[in-house]
Amino acid sequence: MARRYDARTTIFSPEGRLYQVEYAMEAISHAGTALGILASDGIVIAAEKKVTSKLLEQATTSEKIYLLNDNVICGVAGITADANILINYARQAAQQYLFTYDEDIPVEQLVQRLCDLKQGYTQYGGLRPFGVSFIYAGHDSHYGFQLYHSDPSGNYGGWKATCIGANNASAQSLLKQDYKDDITLKEAKELAAKVLSKTMDSTTLSSEKLEFATISLNDENKVVYHLYKPDEIDLLLKEYNLGGQETEQQ
Amino acid sequence: MARRYDARTTIFSPEGRLYQVEYAMEAISHAGTALGILASDGIVIAAEKKVTSKLLEQATTSEKIYLLNDNVICGVAGITADANILINYARQAAQQYLFTYDEDIPVEQLVQRLCDLKQGYTQYGGLRPFGVSFIYAGHDSHYGFQLYHSDPSGNYGGWKATCIGANNASAQSLLKQDYKDDITLKEAKELAAKVLSKTMDSTTLSSEKLEFATISLNDENKVVYHLYKPDEIDLLLKEYNLGGQETEQQ
Amino acid sequence: MARRYDARTTIFSPEGRLYQVEYAMEAISHAGTALGILASDGIVIAAEKKVTSKLLEQATTSEKIYLLNDNVICGVAGITADANILINYARQAAQQYLFTYDEDIPVEQLVQRLCDLKQGYTQYGGLRPFGVSFIYAGHDSHYGFQLYHSDPSGNYGGWKATCIGANNASAQSLLKQDYKDDITLKEAKELAAKVLSKTMDSTTLSSEKLEFATISLNDENKVVYHLYKPDEIDLLLKEYNLGGQETEQQ
Amino acid sequence: MARRYDARTTIFSPEGRLYQVEYAMEAISHAGTALGILASDGIVIAAEKKVTSKLLEQATTSEKIYLLNDNVICGVAGITADANILINYARQAAQQYLFTYDEDIPVEQLVQRLCDLKQGYTQYGGLRPFGVSFIYAGHDSHYGFQLYHSDPSGNYGGWKATCIGANNASAQSLLKQDYKDDITLKEAKELAAKVLSKTMDSTTLSSEKLEFATISLNDENKVVYHLYKPDEIDLLLKEYNLGGQETEQQ
Amino acid sequence: MARRYDARTTIFSPEGRLYQVEYAMEAISHAGTALGILASDGIVIAAEKKVTSKLLEQATTSEKIYLLNDNVICGVAGITADANILINYARQAAQQYLFTYDEDIPVEQLVQRLCDLKQGYTQYGGLRPFGVSFIYAGHDSHYGFQLYHSDPSGNYGGWKATCIGANNASAQSLLKQDYKDDITLKEAKELAAKVLSKTMDSTTLSSEKLEFATISLNDENKVVYHLYKPDEIDLLLKEYNLGGQETEQQ
Amino acid sequence: MARRYDARTTIFSPEGRLYQVEYAMEAISHAGTALGILASDGIVIAAEKKVTSKLLEQATTSEKIYLLNDNVICGVAGITADANILINYARQAAQQYLFTYDEDIPVEQLVQRLCDLKQGYTQYGGLRPFGVSFIYAGHDSHYGFQLYHSDPSGNYGGWKATCIGANNASAQSLLKQDYKDDITLKEAKELAAKVLSKTMDSTTLSSEKLEFATISLNDENKVVYHLYKPDEIDLLLKEYNLGGQETEQQ
Amino acid sequence: MARRYDARTTIFSPEGRLYQVEYAMEAISHAGTALGILASDGIVIAAEKKVTSKLLEQATTSEKIYLLNDNVICGVAGITADANILINYARQAAQQYLFTYDEDIPVEQLVQRLCDLKQGYTQYGGLRPFGVSFIYAGHDSHYGFQLYHSDPSGNYGGWKATCIGANNASAQSLLKQDYKDDITLKEAKELAAKVLSKTMDSTTLSSEKLEFATISLNDENKVVYHLYKPDEIDLLLKEYNLGGQETEQQ
Repeated sequence: MARRYDARTTIFSPEGRLYQVEYAMEAISHAGTALGILASDGIVIAAEKKVTSKLLEQATTSEKIYLLNDNVICGVAGITADANILINYARQAAQQYLFTYDEDIPVEQLVQRLCDLKQGYTQYGGLRPFGVSFIYAGHDSHYGFQLYHSDPSGNYGGWKATCIGANNASAQSLLKQDYKDDITLKEAKELAAKVLSKTMDSTTLSSEKLEFATISLNDENKVVYHLYKPDEIDLLLKEYNLGGQETEQQ
Repeated sequence: MARRYDARTTIFSPEGRLYQVEYAMEAISHAGTALGILASDGIVIAAEKKVTSKLLEQATTSEKIYLLNDNVICGVAGITADANILINYARQAAQQYLFTYDEDIPVEQLVQRLCDLKQGYTQYGGLRPFGVSFIYAGHDSHYGFQLYHSDPSGNYGGWKATCIGANNASAQSLLKQDYKDDITLKEAKELAAKVLSKTMDSTTLSSEKLEFATISLNDENKVVYHLYKPDEIDLLLKEYNLGGQETEQQ
Repeated sequence: MARRYDARTTIFSPEGRLYQVEYAMEAISHAGTALGILASDGIVIAAEKKVTSKLLEQATTSEKIYLLNDNVICGVAGITADANILINYARQAAQQYLFTYDEDIPVEQLVQRLCDLKQGYTQYGGLRPFGVSFIYAGHDSHYGFQLYHSDPSGNYGGWKATCIGANNASAQSLLKQDYKDDITLKEAKELAAKVLSKTMDSTTLSSEKLEFATISLNDENKVVYHLYKPDEIDLLLKEYNLGGQETEQQ
Repeated sequence: MARRYDARTTIFSPEGRLYQVEYAMEAISHAGTALGILASDGIVIAAEKKVTSKLLEQATTSEKIYLLNDNVICGVAGITADANILINYARQAAQQYLFTYDEDIPVEQLVQRLCDLKQGYTQYGGLRPFGVSFIYAGHDSHYGFQLYHSDPSGNYGGWKATCIGANNASAQSLLKQDYKDDITLKEAKELAAKVLSKTMDSTTLSSEKLEFATISLNDENKVVYHLYKPDEIDLLLKEYNLGGQETEQQ
Repeated sequence: MARRYDARTTIFSPEGRLYQVEYAMEAISHAGTALGILASDGIVIAAEKKVTSKLLEQATTSEKIYLLNDNVICGVAGITADANILINYARQAAQQYLFTYDEDIPVEQLVQRLCDLKQGYTQYGGLRPFGVSFIYAGHDSHYGFQLYHSDPSGNYGGWKATCIGANNASAQSLLKQDYKDDITLKEAKELAAKVLSKTMDSTTLSSEKLEFATISLNDENKVVYHLYKPDEIDLLLKEYNLGGQETEQQ
Repeated sequence: MARRYDARTTIFSPEGRLYQVEYAMEAISHAGTALGILASDGIVIAAEKKVTSKLLEQATTSEKIYLLNDNVICGVAGITADANILINYARQAAQQYLFTYDEDIPVEQLVQRLCDLKQGYTQYGGLRPFGVSFIYAGHDSHYGFQLYHSDPSGNYGGWKATCIGANNASAQSLLKQDYKDDITLKEAKELAAKVLSKTMDSTTLSSEKLEFATISLNDENKVVYHLYKPDEIDLLLKEYNLGGQETEQQ
Repeated sequence: MARRYDARTTIFSPEGRLYQVEYAMEAISHAGTALGILASDGIVIAAEKKVTSKLLEQATTSEKIYLLNDNVICGVAGITADANILINYARQAAQQYLFTYDEDIPVEQLVQRLCDLKQGYTQYGGLRPFGVSFIYAGHDSHYGFQLYHSDPSGNYGGWKATCIGANNASAQSLLKQDYKDDITLKEAKELAAKVLSKTMDSTTLSSEKLEFATISLNDENKVVYHLYKPDEIDLLLKEYNLGGQETEQQ
């Protein structure tokens, strides 16, 4: 039955479903996992890199975590080329805001700008939805640290901890189990690493397969972001006794 | 037979039906319930939040009730991303009016602006209808307090009490049973909470699953809106002996 | 055979029919009846409101009869959202005329403007016809009182008495039977109420289910329109011994 | 076989036919007959009104014969809404010519302007042809009195006497039989009435079912047109012993 | 097999054919014949008029032969409404050239302008090819007298004698048989009349069924065109002993 | 299997093929042969004219070989109307270059401009590819004499000798056999004539079926092109003992 | 199952795949191999030319390796006409950057510009993806030497050594085997030649089948690129004992 209604973004099925949007979400479920945890003093985003060829791919370019503005970073799961388009769009929107109002764009406003664009691609003919989900970690003066999640439909929501991409169901349940409301950024980073180590498809955890970033306040109460370098990640993993360990995966 | 005419917004079926519009309404029938009650001294809107993951989702962002202008609030049921687009559109229309005439936009005019936009998406090719219904609660100097309801077709109407989303049929019949024309805002709030407690899919009623808002006049006869904070909702529920109680649902 | 030619507005069937236009007319045949009667000293329009929920819907907003210009009113049957678009269009056209020529737009010119718009939606691709019929009652200095009827195809014609919407066939035959050329507005109002009372789907006639409007000349020979308030309608019904009576319907 | 090529205006069938144009002509063959006769001192156009409801329809609005310019009138058969669009177009074209050159537009030039518009609707995608045929009667200083006929394809030709709409074949053969080259306008009017009386679908001929118009030169050699009023038509019919007579129709 | 590729102008069949263009040519093969013969001192174009109703159609309007510019005339076969569009286009192009360079447009340049327009209608979507072929007869100072032929594909070529429309194959073979390189315009006119008399579908040849035109140089070496009036044609036919004679046709 | 992917230019088949482009090439394989040979002191292009009617077609217009700019000529195979569009485009591009830089456009740049246009017609919807292949022969100061070949896909390449159109495979193998790197223009012309004489579909070779052109440098080292007149071709053929001889063709 | 979702770029299959993008990649898998190796002191790109006709094709035009900007070269596999469009686009983007900022465009920025264009052709209707993959080798002051790879989806990534086109799987495994992190440009060139010699479809390796280019720094630390001439390639091959040798291919 689905077959009659699933080939265009511009039609509802009789049950009120938009199949193309659901198929776009399917595209994301095969991408590397990305998770975000909101702590009392910052936010951590961690993501699994799906390196096709370990030896020859260059490690310099980030693949899963991007800086959108000085106060917002994001984790990505899905079609990379689609993500690039949206990230460019977000960066320009943030810069325009900065130029107009001379202050960083509020986090939710940036999220909504991206989501409005996404929504349009589910309603107009001759287009397909963007095949990409985002986790946004940001800070602004109105609401402090905020963690959002958005999907191809253009829906978004605020979360304390969330997860996108492959194995996100098991990651989500691990997060629920171990998350507590007064978690510190330090604890959140360890939790993120542990959850990924249990859900990733690869057997050994290393900086080659992991990206890591945090956003927090420095001593002068300014927002600082930190995209971890490979050796910093390896250091973290060693600290948590996770590097090189064997992980089972269901 | 429906199958030949249900895949485009731009064709009538032989019976004169627009199936895509009906399918869009189907999408709404799975969304959380929202209801509005017009009282003599104000209006209340209450809505059920469908929290997927109780523990990790953030409670800061409103999900079902939005402020459109200083004199109009609305409750939403359906695809959230579609609602965001329409809400932005309504806010801009209201601001333009304010800027041009230096007074708040009349409620029905705002409703009609939104509905005209919705109608276009049911008549032009290459588009799908907006999968979202609204309850509007507003006040203006011409007609006082007003409660409107609009659906994906762009139809709207004035109501004393109405309901959208899941279980709206049973909620509607409960409202008919208990509504009286001289109801006060205080009574309306209790009625709203009671109706939701009986029709919601969840077993326990709490601020985590409920949004609540009122619009009324203050002592200086100016319109004031009130979007209830979680603890205010819990206080209300306790007052009505509704929090934590078990509810059956047909 | 119809099936090959009925899914687009832009194709004729081999018999020269435009099926989408016919289907749009079908949509109207389920709407509440509206009728107009041209009297020697004015015109009356009466319409049946199809109230879904008697108790909770608000009576303030007109549903079936609208003012297009100071000298033209109209009755509507069909998709309300479509009607709203056309009414807005007509009001603007009338205002533009007033602004340009400093006199009210001639009735037929306004009717034709609306009909030309309707026609376009039956000839261009990617659109559906407007699913709405109109009865126009107006007065201008050239032709005096005039009553027009238009349908989704964009056809229009002048009438002495006509009827659109559900049961229009039986209403039309009742009108033919009782209409006389020298009918006065007073008699026309009573005739309109009587015809509706016999053809309406509901058993009791009341101001909740009826809208009523007249256009006539005042003592200074200026055009005046009168949209009846609920209590005025009830008064009329009582006068005609129609309120509350049981009506059979074939 | 026709079925593969008949649903779009933009394709030829293998035999080189444009089926949509032929179907549009089919739409015209059900419309009331209109005929034109070119006399030595003028032209007459007569048309059958297909009144659905004899009693209630108003007679003030012309239905079948229109004035295009001071020197051109036309008779119409087909979809009235389509005709209105084309008539407006023609009137504007004629006015523009008058404004630019300060003399009436030559008849054939006006006809060709209309036909070029019609042709476009048979060649471009997303459109349907205009479902209307015209008879044009006009006079200009270059070619004197001229009678043209055009159909939905945009073809046109000059005629001494021609006929469009229902029963046009039998009307045409009656015309051939009785037409003579030195016919006067007086004789032409009688011939027109007689032909219609024999081919019309109704049994009695009266001003309610007939429209009549002539174009001729007055004593000062200026073009004058005459759209007959109902009582003038009845007078003519009485003169020709045609009013009220029974007519057979094959 | 043709069926999969013959409904759009924008696709090639696997054998590299454009079926819509071929179908358009089919449309022309039913039209009246037109032929052109290039003589040493001028060119003659003759064409068969397909008069549907001998008696009533007016003879004033040319149907098959048109003047494009002072130095170019053309004969037409196919859909007349399409031809009108192209002839207007050609006339404007010629006038623009005249206005810009103050001399008549070279014949081939005018032909190519028309053909480029025709080509576009075979390559872009949502259009059908023009269903009309042309014979162009012209003279310019560079190449003297020239005779061209173009078809719906936009192809064109120079000819000494050529033929389009119904029975063009038999006409062409008659021309081949009797044409000689040093033919004079006088001889060419007679040859044209004779060929048409043998290939036309009607039994008697007369000015009612024939159009005739020549282009030549006058004594001052200026280009003069001559569109024959009916009586001039009858005179010619009498001269050639062709008028009224019976003709067999295979 | 091809059938699902061969009706639009905008889809790849599962094997990564563009069937519409391949079908366009098929259209070319039925056109008259054209070949080009690059010699040390110039380039020769020769082409077979497919004259449908030997006797009546005019020989004045070139059909297969065109001048694009003072330093570039081209041979054509395929749909002539498509070629005309591209040749016009190329001539304008060359003139624009000349106007901007006051020197002849480099050969490859002109070729690429044409090919970029061709490529677009294989990638965008609602279009078909150009059904024409080109051989370009040109000279510029950077690379001297150059011979290019381009096909409907927009691919192009440099060649020493190449061939397009019917029988291009056998012509190509004849060229490979007899081409030597130090060939002179004189030898190349003879080789071209011989190859064509062996591969052409007609039995006798004459100026009526052949076009011939060369590009070379004159004594002042300026580029000169030479489009051979019929008598010059006949002279050449006699010189090579080719005129009038019987040729076998496989 | 794939069949329902593989004919448009604008739909996801139920598994979240974009079949048209995958088919475009299939088109590339038949193209000649191109590989790039990042060395400590430069980058080498080598590519196999698929010469159809060894003897007659000209060797002057590069086919597989292009200069994008003074600091970026690229290797190409896929549809050449598509590649030309993208290369022009990249060159213009690079020049615009140079003009605006007076320094060479950073390598990744140029890559991303191209990839954003590619992405759009996978998301919008009426287009097909570009059927071409690129290897980019560049140097900028921020990240030194960089080697990127992009495919028709618009995805790109940084690599130490990578390979596109036919036999890329076996080439990739050979590269993995022999690549070491401290490889010099000299060693990389030899490795590139050896890998190609083993994977190419032809039996003998020569300058006729190979293109070779390097990018490195000169003594003044400026970026220099080197597109090898045929004789330079033959010299290299002789140096590596590869020229003329027989190669097996699986």
